Amino acid sequence: MPEHRTRVSAPGPARLDRPVLLGIIGDSAAGKTTLATGIARILGDDQVLIICSDDYHIYSRAERAERRITALHPDSNHVDIFEQHLQLLRRNQPILKPTYNHERGTLEPAQYLAPRPYIIVEGLLGYHARAMRDCYDVKVYMEPNEELRIKWKLWRDCNDRGYTAGEAQDELERRREDSQRFIQPQRTFSDIVINFCPPKNDDAETGAHLDVHHLLRPTLPHPDLSPLIEAGSRNGLSLELCRDRDGKPVDVLGISGSISDESAESLENLLWEMLPEAPHLRNNHVGEFTDIDGKPCISHPLVLTQLLIAYHMVKAAHGVHAV
Amino acid sequence: MPEHRTRVSAPGPARLDRPVLLGIIGDSAAGKTTLATGIARILGDDQVLIICSDDYHIYSRAERAERRITALHPDSNHVDIFEQHLQLLRRNQPILKPTYNHERGTLEPAQYLAPRPYIIVEGLLGYHARAMRDCYDVKVYMEPNEELRIKWKLWRDCNDRGYTAGEAQDELERRREDSQRFIQPQRTFSDIVINFCPPKNDDAETGAHLDVHHLLRPTLPHPDLSPLIEAGSRNGLSLELCRDRDGKPVDVLGISGSISDESAESLENLLWEMLPEAPHLRNNHVGEFTDIDGKPCISHPLVLTQLLIAYHMVKAAHGVHAV
Repeated sequence: MPEHRTRVSAPGPARLDRPVLLGIIGDSAAGKTTLATGIARILGDDQVLIICSDDYHIYSRAERAERRITALHPDSNHVDIFEQHLQLLRRNQPILKPTYNHERGTLEPAQYLAPRPYIIVEGLLGYHARAMRDCYDVKVYMEPNEELRIKWKLWRDCNDRGYTAGEAQDELERRREDSQRFIQPQRTFSDIVINFCPPKNDDAETGAHLDVHHLLRPTLPHPDLSPLIEAGSRNGLSLELCRDRDGKPVDVLGISGSISDESAESLENLLWEMLPEAPHLRNNHVGEFTDIDGKPCISHPLVLTQLLIAYHMVKAAHGVHAV
Repeated sequence: MPEHRTRVSAPGPARLDRPVLLGIIGDSAAGKTTLATGIARILGDDQVLIICSDDYHIYSRAERAERRITALHPDSNHVDIFEQHLQLLRRNQPILKPTYNHERGTLEPAQYLAPRPYIIVEGLLGYHARAMRDCYDVKVYMEPNEELRIKWKLWRDCNDRGYTAGEAQDELERRREDSQRFIQPQRTFSDIVINFCPPKNDDAETGAHLDVHHLLRPTLPHPDLSPLIEAGSRNGLSLELCRDRDGKPVDVLGISGSISDESAESLENLLWEMLPEAPHLRNNHVGEFTDIDGKPCISHPLVLTQLLIAYHMVKAAHGVHAV
């Protein structure tokens, strides 16, 4: 989905003397880039560096085909250099990042990146090793319903990456095993699992009216959501104590895709009130994305998801979260 | 000058738990690559990683021309990343090194390099910053006579880098000021200054019969050269106490280009006897290079220069030098 770029006036400097790192990890076409660009817009594009771990691919698309290895396999990525670069950025040092051209599937010259107050790392293998995981302040794992992800992936690969429908389908098949071996096991290391899914009454929905569930692990100090829930309980917002698939207790925050504009806005306002550190960010438009019909849309569940993650970033920057 | 590649049986592991770093710094076409490849052959090509700092150019040849900046200027090089990579290698970590294609003058995809027991860093700006200089165990500065360097440079740029004679001459002019500002001031930080020059009776010599002078600073524990000098005093070898151009006292070791094969060989043997740590390296052929007439040659002054620097590398690897 295309990136949106807006400029905002620079907020005051983050109070930590090092960048705050957010990980957005998940399978391909799980919605990582859409989430990352939206959060960057909230925090201010000039304050945020987005790193895509796909840039650390060792092989071009043609070389991967030749070697019969997928982009998801650690052996087809410079995982040690990626880890090194996360550590350097966390220590406030610049990196010379390799570059992978998704459109052409080729490796290109490296690119110099200086750290910024907020760094968003999105990609496939960002929680693969302990030393990588130790670099983040906030760890998100994207897990849309699998049928929805497949629709997103076919649309994206054919529209943005020059695949034919047949090639994109083959690629999905080829990746299935490596996804189970290398991508999905990373879910357990996240603080928040984000699950977009079609509402019960509309299996075909792929965009603005998707529901979202946030699985909230106690590894982060989540905001007190009770004012939100009280305000939203009859308006498509819910909070439930559940057992995760590993049996461990978690909170699940649900935001309905059919939430009304008014309810969504009042919930946004409540969230902003919990962020007295960043009133200057309040006017940034969020939640925009491009639907698979190519239409620009606003999704309330996406807006609120972006805001909740931005909340953690701002709190971490101001030393509210333990670091 | 073309690189030579030979394989040797792997020597025992170096005793340090980190690589030994040698710097070979100097203006372009000062003979850095010839020296580096010869030393690598002595130490064993599979034990040595050669890094060229030119790979850290920010701009392609065309971009430099457009911006009117030379390759010698720190602003046209990723000096901070170069410094970071030296520090990583010294800590025994791999790097993803950018790549500059000298033939085409373009930037290319980065290259993964794991450290090896010996690392030779050759290039223009390797002693530019204190933090870089602190990474080396041995620091060499190449300073051939200027007229000789110009002959070498014109030959190399036209033969290997696709310049016309006029372009190569223009490039020399353009670089003169930056050489004085940025390259030559690094001389003072070296342990050894290597000066190749034509013998008094033959101004036109550019290859095998050049004399060499080693200016030896007390910043390294140089070997006791008295047995060499005694054996060689009538055979083209000399050691003189001199004042450097800054007035500081230095030893100057002179090796004549007209030294006989027999004398050179017996001197080589004496040097090997000072290296009981590395008898297995003794059979490696050194001192070969390609003359500007395109002929492969052996130069005794070059052989002995390479051996003397390899001596310091082996001693450093075995913890004999302070580190």
